[in-house]
Amino acid sequence: MTAMTRPVITAYNWAPDEGRGLVRDLRVRWALEEVGQSYDVRYLSMGAHKHPSHRALQPFGQVPTFESDSVTLFESGAIVQYIAETRPGLLPGDAAGRARAIEWMFAALNTIEPVIMDYDLATLFEADEAWSKPRLPAVIGRIEERLGELAKRLGDNDWLDGDFSAGDLLMAAVLRQIKHPPMVIAHANLAAYLERGEARPAFQRALTAQMAGFTGNPPPGHEFLDQAPQDQGERA
Amino acid sequence: MTAMTRPVITAYNWAPDEGRGLVRDLRVRWALEEVGQSYDVRYLSMGAHKHPSHRALQPFGQVPTFESDSVTLFESGAIVQYIAETRPGLLPGDAAGRARAIEWMFAALNTIEPVIMDYDLATLFEADEAWSKPRLPAVIGRIEERLGELAKRLGDNDWLDGDFSAGDLLMAAVLRQIKHPPMVIAHANLAAYLERGEARPAFQRALTAQMAGFTGNPPPGHEFLDQAPQDQGERA
Repeated sequence: MTAMTRPVITAYNWAPDEGRGLVRDLRVRWALEEVGQSYDVRYLSMGAHKHPSHRALQPFGQVPTFESDSVTLFESGAIVQYIAETRPGLLPGDAAGRARAIEWMFAALNTIEPVIMDYDLATLFEADEAWSKPRLPAVIGRIEERLGELAKRLGDNDWLDGDFSAGDLLMAAVLRQIKHPPMVIAHANLAAYLERGEARPAFQRALTAQMAGFTGNPPPGHEFLDQAPQDQGERA
Repeated sequence: MTAMTRPVITAYNWAPDEGRGLVRDLRVRWALEEVGQSYDVRYLSMGAHKHPSHRALQPFGQVPTFESDSVTLFESGAIVQYIAETRPGLLPGDAAGRARAIEWMFAALNTIEPVIMDYDLATLFEADEAWSKPRLPAVIGRIEERLGELAKRLGDNDWLDGDFSAGDLLMAAVLRQIKHPPMVIAHANLAAYLERGEARPAFQRALTAQMAGFTGNPPPGHEFLDQAPQDQGERA
């Protein structure tokens, strides 16, 4: 367990209403709040995330990044894991429990999130395309299958494996992206799981901080939702 | 560094031709071969992966799983990480290098693979749907953007960050899924990167072992490609 000097993360100073509260620096802020690590934020205006200076930190031109005296990282899953490994509170102490928490981190990002991203594509970024509406039932079917399986595994437990972990943090962050459609809510235990996650003081502090950071302006003449989803940074 | 007893993984005893060499137990076999850890395989016939007995190990009804005397895991990314952490060879010894290798693991699975999965959907699982062909340029556009960024970051280096790591293992495994279309090949350095990965003796042993395991029969009256992609286990 090494002490961490105050790290610096990157975030956007503007996002469309639909994206506020969902941009992926939220995951990193949440993890930092859970372990009680204060941090600074370097805000990027829309467009600056594609500049070579930012791409030197983040090759895909997204947020967040994480810089401390010991390491510079991108990819929110990896940043959350690094925070969880260098400060107590987000990973169990025993090797097997730790491995299972990491298992749920990967399950959130590689099994659940991809089918959810597809919903964003179909209903936001490609919503006006002729193919999107007829395709939507297949997209929703894949999400429902995965959420049904997840709900079954969660059962009556508060968290996915014992105490709240980095796995729950990422899973809740992923599920939040589809809480407005009835898909999560259809499973009472998943809805309650998400509520438990969002009720955590660390989550609330992270969300408030992200929202407070949107002090910038949209790029002139720029309709954000017409962009490719990649331009929303790591979100979508 | 704890010694690992001989673990048991799960794999399918049959897959359609298009899936052979790509099912995700390959990633785990490759990692085990890299660290010199022998293993046993419990083969599942098509359909058995959806039985409650397998779902007890893998809530999403997929392969691979990993069982040792110390832990039972699913999710290939997490299994590869566990192997990398318990045996030398796949993660750098210094904390910062280790974090950056993990960063590339997440980048492979959460930034690159989702856009590639979409290509499988459009050209295999939803190929017959009226919307798939008009949608394909958008799908390919997203892949090309990501691969262009990845190629730029890789540059003239052999691997993504110093020596070959678990991050390269997962990235190469992900890129293999689209090596036949011209998308990877369009970037000479990515094509060479993938070739270097596939030329590794550990990869070759893993691939040979997966291919040798397809000794079973397709489920009667079952046209695999008409299934939802989830039924290909963790692949797609």
